[in-house]
Amino acid sequence: MTYCVGLKLSAGLVLLSDTRTNAGLDNISCYRKMFFFGNPDERVITIMTAGSLSVTQTTIARLEEAIEDELADETTSILKAPTMLRVATIIGNTLSRTRRDISDQFRDLKQQASASMIVGGQRRGGDMRLFLIYPEGNFIEATEDTPFLQIGEHKYGKPILDRVVTPATSLADAQKAVLLSMDSTLRSNLSVGMPLDLAVIERDACRVTTRRRILDGDPDFARMSAAWSAALRDSFVKVTI
Amino acid sequence: MTYCVGLKLSAGLVLLSDTRTNAGLDNISCYRKMFFFGNPDERVITIMTAGSLSVTQTTIARLEEAIEDELADETTSILKAPTMLRVATIIGNTLSRTRRDISDQFRDLKQQASASMIVGGQRRGGDMRLFLIYPEGNFIEATEDTPFLQIGEHKYGKPILDRVVTPATSLADAQKAVLLSMDSTLRSNLSVGMPLDLAVIERDACRVTTRRRILDGDPDFARMSAAWSAALRDSFVKVTI
Repeated sequence: MTYCVGLKLSAGLVLLSDTRTNAGLDNISCYRKMFFFGNPDERVITIMTAGSLSVTQTTIARLEEAIEDELADETTSILKAPTMLRVATIIGNTLSRTRRDISDQFRDLKQQASASMIVGGQRRGGDMRLFLIYPEGNFIEATEDTPFLQIGEHKYGKPILDRVVTPATSLADAQKAVLLSMDSTLRSNLSVGMPLDLAVIERDACRVTTRRRILDGDPDFARMSAAWSAALRDSFVKVTI
Repeated sequence: MTYCVGLKLSAGLVLLSDTRTNAGLDNISCYRKMFFFGNPDERVITIMTAGSLSVTQTTIARLEEAIEDELADETTSILKAPTMLRVATIIGNTLSRTRRDISDQFRDLKQQASASMIVGGQRRGGDMRLFLIYPEGNFIEATEDTPFLQIGEHKYGKPILDRVVTPATSLADAQKAVLLSMDSTLRSNLSVGMPLDLAVIERDACRVTTRRRILDGDPDFARMSAAWSAALRDSFVKVTI
């Protein structure tokens, strides 16, 4: 399983992913699920992935090939597409084609391979945008009303986001919110695991402002997690029915 | 959908269920999902249900028929079974048989009907026990390590239970915990809905000690829900990363 969450705020984008990949319960590995693309100071694009590793890796590899192809143009390369909407369209089409190719290979098994992605970024002169791309290649976008998008194991970590995240949330508070959302998920689903990848992209910076890998046993994360548990228990004592 | 939760504590059982039943998003009704059986001061049995309404209603009706049958004996009537384990076995067998009967009727649709149940209670002289019965009729039991069981939409409401419920939790705190667990679920899943049914069975009472229906707009529940939201937001401000 996987948990990835992206927030689109007035101040910028905040993105967090775990790194656990498993094939069954007895085959667990660590794979990065957050990828960065860009032209310095012209555009920044982040992709987070959930689902079948063969689909997500092949999709990312095909996007890279399309960028490096000498015939690359604005319809094939996410570094040449004129808008973030076109970027999302290229990624959606590539994901959909990869998923179909791999599902075809699975035909005899009567199984399907699937994956979804969160794509965020900004091109100089354009708006900052955040999309959730479905396995079929269609997508939805974060808005003022719903400023966050999740893929993978989204349920355990949603209540805290529902309660504290608005477009006006600061980047510092937003990082806290996604880390607490991840903390609830890590506690409840063993197939979501450390280390974590955290990224912040400030509005109009057109580059990744902060990028951090949080390792298992990270003292700041452990302290925050313990403080949150204690605060929840205190709150529980104070609330009356 | 549904959310039902049962806690087995040193002090007794605490049970909570919602009442929303839906066939699609445009056909929503209210059905009780908590049922009581017993012989005064000899035994008390509570059943909570999740899943296909035709399966759960028919299972409850067959259990009632078996109780009223003039040939009822300890292998067929949950009011004559000598232990709570035997009660769970009778309910599991009845559920499994009903599920198979209805799934047979669905054969041409290539669909299956399914349901699960939480069964709690005590017989005078025996232990208080709490079981989760799967659609196939097998079951698991709440223990010291895991004193709560959930059916239906269990994810949103699990983090609070994980953090605050132990076998030593008081009946008052336990009622607060299940109501807060339900509150998180109600906020996140529209197919779980008010009113709620809450029951408490004190250890060795062998009867339902408290039984309460909480209606939509209940002022105590609304106040608790608002206080919990405020407390969570306060906690969020205090925790630092």
